[in-house]
Amino acid sequence: MTYCVAIAVDAGLVFCSDSRTNAGIDRVSTYSKMFRFGVDGQRQFVILSSGNLGTTQATISRVKRDIKERAMQSLLTVESISEAADYLGGISRTVQEKHDAHGTGFEASFVIGGQIAGKKHRIMMVYPEGNHITSSHDTPYLQIGESKYGKPILDRILTRDLNLDTCALCALVSMDSTMRSNLSVGPPIEMLVYRTDTLTLDTPLRFDEDSEFLREVKRSWDQRLKDAFRQMPPFAWAAAWDKNPGRAVNYNDDQD
Amino acid sequence: MTYCVAIAVDAGLVFCSDSRTNAGIDRVSTYSKMFRFGVDGQRQFVILSSGNLGTTQATISRVKRDIKERAMQSLLTVESISEAADYLGGISRTVQEKHDAHGTGFEASFVIGGQIAGKKHRIMMVYPEGNHITSSHDTPYLQIGESKYGKPILDRILTRDLNLDTCALCALVSMDSTMRSNLSVGPPIEMLVYRTDTLTLDTPLRFDEDSEFLREVKRSWDQRLKDAFRQMPPFAWAAAWDKNPGRAVNYNDDQD
Repeated sequence: MTYCVAIAVDAGLVFCSDSRTNAGIDRVSTYSKMFRFGVDGQRQFVILSSGNLGTTQATISRVKRDIKERAMQSLLTVESISEAADYLGGISRTVQEKHDAHGTGFEASFVIGGQIAGKKHRIMMVYPEGNHITSSHDTPYLQIGESKYGKPILDRILTRDLNLDTCALCALVSMDSTMRSNLSVGPPIEMLVYRTDTLTLDTPLRFDEDSEFLREVKRSWDQRLKDAFRQMPPFAWAAAWDKNPGRAVNYNDDQD
Repeated sequence: MTYCVAIAVDAGLVFCSDSRTNAGIDRVSTYSKMFRFGVDGQRQFVILSSGNLGTTQATISRVKRDIKERAMQSLLTVESISEAADYLGGISRTVQEKHDAHGTGFEASFVIGGQIAGKKHRIMMVYPEGNHITSSHDTPYLQIGESKYGKPILDRILTRDLNLDTCALCALVSMDSTMRSNLSVGPPIEMLVYRTDTLTLDTPLRFDEDSEFLREVKRSWDQRLKDAFRQMPPFAWAAAWDKNPGRAVNYNDDQD
């Protein structure tokens, strides 16, 4: 599996992805799922990928070739992030259809985000079918892959006015929750930050398995979560029951 | 969807289930997914159900009828929780096979737990195929339905030596995380506790949508989680980078 998350706030964008791929649990490998494209001062794009590795590699390869060969349409020519998402979705579908005769399993999803000079910074999620959605004011993030374990913390913490440090930390905590519950998501964890209107990408970060900082995040969050739970008010049996007098459920003898 | 969780610790068992069912988002109804069977002093069983409502209702109906009609095999005759799980799985498969000609979608999963006099208290998960697994020392819980959102907190908190109050609170927090992220899981939340060797079930608890206690758990956990996140050490950009010097990823120009 894969877990990738992209966050879009006023201050900029945060991209975070794991690097584990597997075809069966004894065919586990490490592949980056984060790809960067851009011309400083003009346009910057980051793509995160999830799904069939054949499809994602062929898709990214084609994106690179189109840039290199100055194709009619490429990430150098698109005029908006939305057009970039359409372009990416089109390639992804073409690649999938080449193999589709043999059934399904070739699906891939992508997140593409960035900024083009004079336009707003945005993130888009590209479905296997090639269509796409963007984030919203209330849901300032997009996820692909194994997204459920890490979703609650994003829902609770993220707002558009957060600074990028907080967003980056939130992405890492979300990644940590996912890694803890799903073995097929794992380090190295890659992270990339884009600051609004800079039109240049920050230095990419990479946290390996033995990264002291990643371990510190893990340890620290684990401890704080346990502390938070311990500080919860005690389970109020009487209160719970008193509030709902007589609402017993399903006694086996009084039903058909 | 559905979310049900059962916890097995030394002190006893905790069962917790939501009550929302849906066939499309405009066909949302409330059905209990918790069923109790037993003879005080002799044996107690709790069943949680998930999946196709037709299958779960027909299965539970048959379990009740077998008790009422004193069938050769019923929850009154089985000699272990494992045998009870086999019995339940057999009924579930029979019910599913009746409709299977028309394709899939009739699957159901169950958790069955309890205690028979002289035996250990246990919980079992019954798969749609009829086979079953139990919990373990390191994983003292079982989930069915929409299980991923609520799994991280169970993994972090639960150990076999916890008291039942803590387990009940942990189940509620896990349920709260699930409800927050998935609209198709919702109140009333039902909870049932079994204390080891009592051979009688506690009074069932039911938390309605307007339950003050449920709201308090939600508010309290939300606040504590946010506080926990705020107390995390700040994101250490420099440290993260310094620990991994020169490990840049995927520059678009230096790859094919």
